[in-house]
Amino acid sequence: MHFEEPLRLSSGASLRGYDLCYETYGRLNAGRSNAVLVCHALNASHHVAGVYLDEQGQPMPRSEGWWDNMVGPGKPLDTDRFFVIGVNNLGSCFGSTGPMHRNPETGEIYGADFPVVTVEDWVHSQARLLERLGIEQLAAVMGGSLGGMQALSWTLQYPERVRHAVVVASAPNLTAENIAFNEVARRAIVTDPDFHGGHFYRHGVLPKRGLRIARMIGHITYLSDDVMNEKFGRQLRDAVQAAAYKYSTQEVEFQIESYLRHQGDKFAEYFDANTYLLITRALDYFDPAGACGGDLALALEPVKAQFLLVSFTTDWRFSPARSRELLKAMLDVRLDVSYAEIDAPHGHDAFLLDDARYMSVVRTYFERMKS
Amino acid sequence: MHFEEPLRLSSGASLRGYDLCYETYGRLNAGRSNAVLVCHALNASHHVAGVYLDEQGQPMPRSEGWWDNMVGPGKPLDTDRFFVIGVNNLGSCFGSTGPMHRNPETGEIYGADFPVVTVEDWVHSQARLLERLGIEQLAAVMGGSLGGMQALSWTLQYPERVRHAVVVASAPNLTAENIAFNEVARRAIVTDPDFHGGHFYRHGVLPKRGLRIARMIGHITYLSDDVMNEKFGRQLRDAVQAAAYKYSTQEVEFQIESYLRHQGDKFAEYFDANTYLLITRALDYFDPAGACGGDLALALEPVKAQFLLVSFTTDWRFSPARSRELLKAMLDVRLDVSYAEIDAPHGHDAFLLDDARYMSVVRTYFERMKS
Repeated sequence: MHFEEPLRLSSGASLRGYDLCYETYGRLNAGRSNAVLVCHALNASHHVAGVYLDEQGQPMPRSEGWWDNMVGPGKPLDTDRFFVIGVNNLGSCFGSTGPMHRNPETGEIYGADFPVVTVEDWVHSQARLLERLGIEQLAAVMGGSLGGMQALSWTLQYPERVRHAVVVASAPNLTAENIAFNEVARRAIVTDPDFHGGHFYRHGVLPKRGLRIARMIGHITYLSDDVMNEKFGRQLRDAVQAAAYKYSTQEVEFQIESYLRHQGDKFAEYFDANTYLLITRALDYFDPAGACGGDLALALEPVKAQFLLVSFTTDWRFSPARSRELLKAMLDVRLDVSYAEIDAPHGHDAFLLDDARYMSVVRTYFERMKS
Repeated sequence: MHFEEPLRLSSGASLRGYDLCYETYGRLNAGRSNAVLVCHALNASHHVAGVYLDEQGQPMPRSEGWWDNMVGPGKPLDTDRFFVIGVNNLGSCFGSTGPMHRNPETGEIYGADFPVVTVEDWVHSQARLLERLGIEQLAAVMGGSLGGMQALSWTLQYPERVRHAVVVASAPNLTAENIAFNEVARRAIVTDPDFHGGHFYRHGVLPKRGLRIARMIGHITYLSDDVMNEKFGRQLRDAVQAAAYKYSTQEVEFQIESYLRHQGDKFAEYFDANTYLLITRALDYFDPAGACGGDLALALEPVKAQFLLVSFTTDWRFSPARSRELLKAMLDVRLDVSYAEIDAPHGHDAFLLDDARYMSVVRTYFERMKS
């Protein structure tokens, strides 16, 4: 969807002539009352569910949507009943206008000049998309992690336009440690000699070293210590017998090293470095209580939506304690909120994985929802 | 102290013509029975206690030993009673033979060719130093973190030569997550274009970008989430008013970013990149239970020393659970072990800080010790 009217951003800058990539699943009902917006986290996109077909009509390998276990016919967010919309955020690198595109005002690729966007800006742009689609009110907005922040922001910015919010593995803001991990990742990218101040496109290079490091750091924080020990432990990669070390500092020695390098290499092939900076900064900045002197309950005063909050016991990136902060503030202002703390071993990644109790909680919440 | 006889390493390689830097505090008694060896962790040295004086006899600024709060006259490890030895490990960059020195066999600077050294190798080299000093048996060996691993290794390799071991904030081996953080740090260094395969000395450059990232990652894991929130929280660096964001991805915005960059910059000025690789690998490799099929109690069978184990509640790098693993295995084989789990907010760093309960536990342990 192309938007010609400028979008005024939180920073004061404006973005004009931008596109938003989106996908929809299911059918909008006659009353236009069954729409559910799904917001994505760091490295996902508008492609929430389903698979793409090739020219022969065969499913393309590895083309499943990032929340395909959650969204689809008969799934917890049932597209036989709900009209689901996935939208790629501004500044991303999967189709919506971002740093890899040309600035219509200068004709140059944005690169590092793409304006800083916030969670609030994304929500604003999503609201415009829904207006174009003729949807005045969402049955629900849903997201995990950074997507959950967008869902929360929807209920704050557009209290009349959203009846329910499902906020999974999220937080009301980042802690100092969260910001610290983001900053290390950004420094790795920015200090890569191939970054060229963010204008690497002009130089025909990509700051892959930095992106690899950023992704490796990210991956550690997505997994729990327990699940890492279970999956990899201290297993060596190539050893024929136990404890047959190679005695090398640079070669891969342990399975976990091999896994992380592989994840880093894959990511550096497809993800845009400027997008990484923008998205981690949007995470850093999100802090709805900030404008209310840190009083989250006060910040939630305008909210009218009902909530489902979900957290996972082993998530140390956005721990259950952060969801409980949200829960407490919501109860303080008499919001209708359900909270499920799921005992799952997978850390932050759990929000993307199949867990029977998690899926069942979300399914029940949507089943009870009027549409 | 210069050693001419070759040191056979765990890897099968040999190191010859090496030096060990050491300092001593207090006096060896007539029975040579009051010696305590203090082993250092990642970025420390033989300079455990006291300050250096300039030519005018004035204390030099910032020259305090790294455990000066623990070791000295009247301190928990009391140098009025004990003869304390600090030794810089092989492969380090603070005086003992390491990658910055010349290989006597080739005349070239070792760089990446410095052989991989293990905790066991360090202990072996320390044992040789003690032989030269005429110390047949240690009253105690003591260390925190990686230093604690050396203390544990002493009791395994030289059961007759150590009466007590004080193992603080340590672990019987690294978890997959510990190894993962080490690996990201190593990749940041090795992929820095200024690393030149570890032979950067020849090129007149230093891989500072990589070292900065490595140190930033390390720092996050040394601190607890709580203490980071207390010290830095979401405070902005330069904002005149709250929430006055700069909307920049590359400038310092939060206090925690400024702190981490500063720590990274400082470290990159003085620490050797090859040393960082070597020391993190020694951490990865340490696993005394490995040779016993993972049975830590079985590995501890030869041990005769008495132990004090100390852990800190908010240490998530070497959590109390890891010390309790050690404790359980020691109890299983009927070792004499005391364990203190200190409720401290500072994370892994707590082992270097003043905490009244921690200091008191260590003081009492040494007070009761025969010398």
